[in-house]
Parts: sequence; C-alpha cells; structure tokens
Amino acid sequence: MDAYTESMERLIAALGNLPGIGRRTAERLAFYLLDADKEEVSALEAALRDIKTKVGHCSECGSLAEGGRCAICASPRRDRSRLCVVEKPKDVIRFEATGGYDGVYHVLGGLVAPVEGQGPEHLDLDRLVQRVAGGEVKEVILALAPTSEGDGTALVVADRLKGTKVRVTRLARGLPTGATLDYANPGMLADALRGRQELDESE
Amino acid sequence: MDAYTESMERLIAALGNLPGIGRRTAERLAFYLLDADKEEVSALEAALRDIKTKVGHCSECGSLAEGGRCAICASPRRDRSRLCVVEKPKDVIRFEATGGYDGVYHVLGGLVAPVEGQGPEHLDLDRLVQRVAGGEVKEVILALAPTSEGDGTALVVADRLKGTKVRVTRLARGLPTGATLDYANPGMLADALRGRQELDESE
Repeated sequence: MDAYTESMERLIAALGNLPGIGRRTAERLAFYLLDADKEEVSALEAALRDIKTKVGHCSECGSLAEGGRCAICASPRRDRSRLCVVEKPKDVIRFEATGGYDGVYHVLGGLVAPVEGQGPEHLDLDRLVQRVAGGEVKEVILALAPTSEGDGTALVVADRLKGTKVRVTRLARGLPTGATLDYANPGMLADALRGRQELDESE
Repeated sequence: MDAYTESMERLIAALGNLPGIGRRTAERLAFYLLDADKEEVSALEAALRDIKTKVGHCSECGSLAEGGRCAICASPRRDRSRLCVVEKPKDVIRFEATGGYDGVYHVLGGLVAPVEGQGPEHLDLDRLVQRVAGGEVKEVILALAPTSEGDGTALVVADRLKGTKVRVTRLARGLPTGATLDYANPGMLADALRGRQELDESE
C-alpha cells in the first residue's frame, strides 16, 4: 500500500513480528507512537538498546544482571544456605513474585531433553557443584518444571550432588503435572515451595 | 522487585505504557525481545527512531510523508481533479485500503469541536482553499466522520469553498453494508430514507 511511509511500514512490520501482536494492533501501536511524546519513544528505544547491550548474566547465579552480580546475589539479606535451582532467568522472577523465598538461586540455562538431543553438558552444572562444594549451602531446592524433562534434569542434578552433604529437595507436586512454570500463579508457586520434599531416587 | 535488572524494568515499563499492553504482556514481550536476534531488536529500535526523525507531513496534502511529498501526491497515476478531505492521516490509509479511490487527499488535521474549544483556525483550511483555487480540482469530497463535529466541520469547509466553482460532495449516509435493520438507530434510518436511490437492476 502506498499510503504508509517507509518508516511507518517498517515500524508496523517490526511490531507485527512480536508474539501476540497482529497487523491491526501493530498499526494501532505505530500510530500511537507516531503521535506520542518524543521522550516516550526515546525511552522505549533506549530500553531496547540497553537490554541488548547491558543485560547479561550474573556471575554467581546465572540469572539476569547488568555487570557482575545480580541484585539477589549481591544482597546481604538473602539466606545463602538455601539454593533454588531453576531452568531460566524468568523462573527467578516468578519465584521472587511469591515473596516467600529469601534464599539464592542457580540458573541451569535449560533442561536435559534427550528427544531434542539436549544433554546435561549444556547446563551450568559444574558451577553448581562448585557453589555447593563451598560448604555454605545446606539445601538445594530443585525448582524445575513438573514434566518428564524437568524430572529427568532433577535426577541429573541430584546425581551430580551425590557425595556432598547437602540436602536435596524438590518442589511439592502442588503444580499440575504437564504445565509449564510460566502459567503458574504466585500462590501456586508459594504452595509448591512450602511443600518441597526430599528427592528419593528409590521412588 | 529485585529480580529484574534496571534495563529490563525500564523496557517493561515502556512497553506497558503502550495502549492495550498490560504489565503481563509487557513482561512477555520484554523476555521475547531479550532472547530475540539482535537484528530483530535493532530493526524495531531503528524504526522507532525513524518515525520520530524522518516521518513528517506531505507538503501538498498534509498526510504522512518522508521528505517533501507523499507517495500519493507524487504519483502521476492519481486523478488530481478529485480531492478527498479527511480529518487525519490514518483516514487516508483506510480509504486507500478500499482500493476504490484514485484521486488525491487533503488532511485537515482535526475537526471543529466547539465543546472542546477547538475552532476552525486549527485546521489546514487556507491551504485547501489555495489548492482548490489552483483550478485543477473539480470535486471536493468531504470524507469526515458522520458525527456532529464531522458535520459541523463539513459546513465550515463548504463555506470556505463558496465562490469557487468546485463541486462539493460528502460521503453517502445510509445503512452500513452487512448490518441488519434491527441494529440501525433512528438517525441512521432517517439518513437512509433521505438518501434513497433509484434501484438500478442493471448494476
């Protein structure tokens, strides 16, 4: 169509690429942005640039951080004797939203997925073992998805921690099996944290 | 919340400012963008910058343009004897989408809205009169909203064009195609009655 200018067409295309944003919504947003304050658009532009340049991973837990350690690992108020092992940085956000956990985290960066040829070598396991070997950690909470991949990964992690004196627990099965963590609400997650159980491999 | 980094928090806030985008959607989009290709994010970033720096108004019709004239005014295929007067650039897009108009446009930049203290001096009327005085325009089509403000503005425009030989028309009033009579309000029905047309069965 001739009626859009090139820049508008490119903005509509870029917005339409985002998940859940269709052509019509992208047009509406583009017109909104065209009329919006320069400051508002600049803020969005700068934030987009910053997440690609400034946001990296925490040197300690592997969650999102800007330079060095994340705010959780850097906080003196967190209980460093408990380590919550999660799949990805987004999971940290979800657990923080429960307000019911004051320990620290360890982000594996994925799950073991044999079907997709994803073995444990892709996971940040060595550093987890190192952190536990430090002696400060008394309990490792496996907060992985209640799926076969999450369970499989939990077994791999537990196996790597064998021989250390750390207590290994996993989230209670208050979560509906088969769902992903992204759809769990804070209450469900808080319940699951509270009801965590010993990982018994004889099960 | 501690768990987001500053840049992520700022991106979520900026996305959440957009109309129809709530906090949860903004979070989902931010995580998508965090993991997206650098190129995809750069494209969005560049498009945002460009609409604020490159997109301006067509020197002829007042619609969106990047430098000088818009593609419609610059096209040799458009019929310059017909001028469609609209409220805003977005209306041009909507009429172009019909594929049924090959004339040119004039964007007023608003409507007369006495209740909000918006008089005709805010509208791009002088240039419209100039364009019509040029002599090339044979018909001015008033394509304004069928509201009291649109009708009021149409009267103001027609008044300014009095004395020129141009034919002034406005969009047909009637029943929206595809609607049922049950949903037509009295105003719509009265308009449809007034504007009744010969049934031409040869059509």
